[in-house]
Amino acid sequence: MEIFKSRYRHLLRSYLKESSEKALYQAQLFSRKSILQQISPEEIISLHSEALKEIFPDIQEEVLLSFDFLLEVMVDYGLAYQEHQSMRDQQF
Amino acid sequence: MEIFKSRYRHLLRSYLKESSEKALYQAQLFSRKSILQQISPEEIISLHSEALKEIFPDIQEEVLLSFDFLLEVMVDYGLAYQEHQSMRDQQF
Repeated sequence: MEIFKSRYRHLLRSYLKESSEKALYQAQLFSRKSILQQISPEEIISLHSEALKEIFPDIQEEVLLSFDFLLEVMVDYGLAYQEHQSMRDQQF
Repeated sequence: MEIFKSRYRHLLRSYLKESSEKALYQAQLFSRKSILQQISPEEIISLHSEALKEIFPDIQEEVLLSFDFLLEVMVDYGLAYQEHQSMRDQQF
């Protein structure tokens, strides 16, 4: 997970610097790898919030707090996704 | 979608005011409804970013920009989730 964390931070930093299509493409590649590694959508929200905290040390505390809410909303999406994984495993 | 947008903003605002378990529980209920309405995880990211922009008009532009990256990462999770929905529909 630590590798994903620093990779995400690195990619996000590049995106904020360049705002290029190439940097967005890196986001897609990251996403595919994280899905393969069974990283849940709520873990992605955590990665994002932690990366923002490190990239912007003066970010408003309330903005960071808002991610707890977003994370809670994502939990059910994570469950639906896990169900998808197990249904797929049963099919093959 | 407009109803979801204003509902999300309202719930997020309540959460930031109270930081209570009750407000987090509202996030869960919102999530279940949005899953039933086939709102994708990347649409949730959009809702969050738009809500932050309205709640914090002075939020750093780069923080908002970071959501474009997060959204791109979520797209594949959304596809996996759609696949889950269609597999479930086939089973019933």
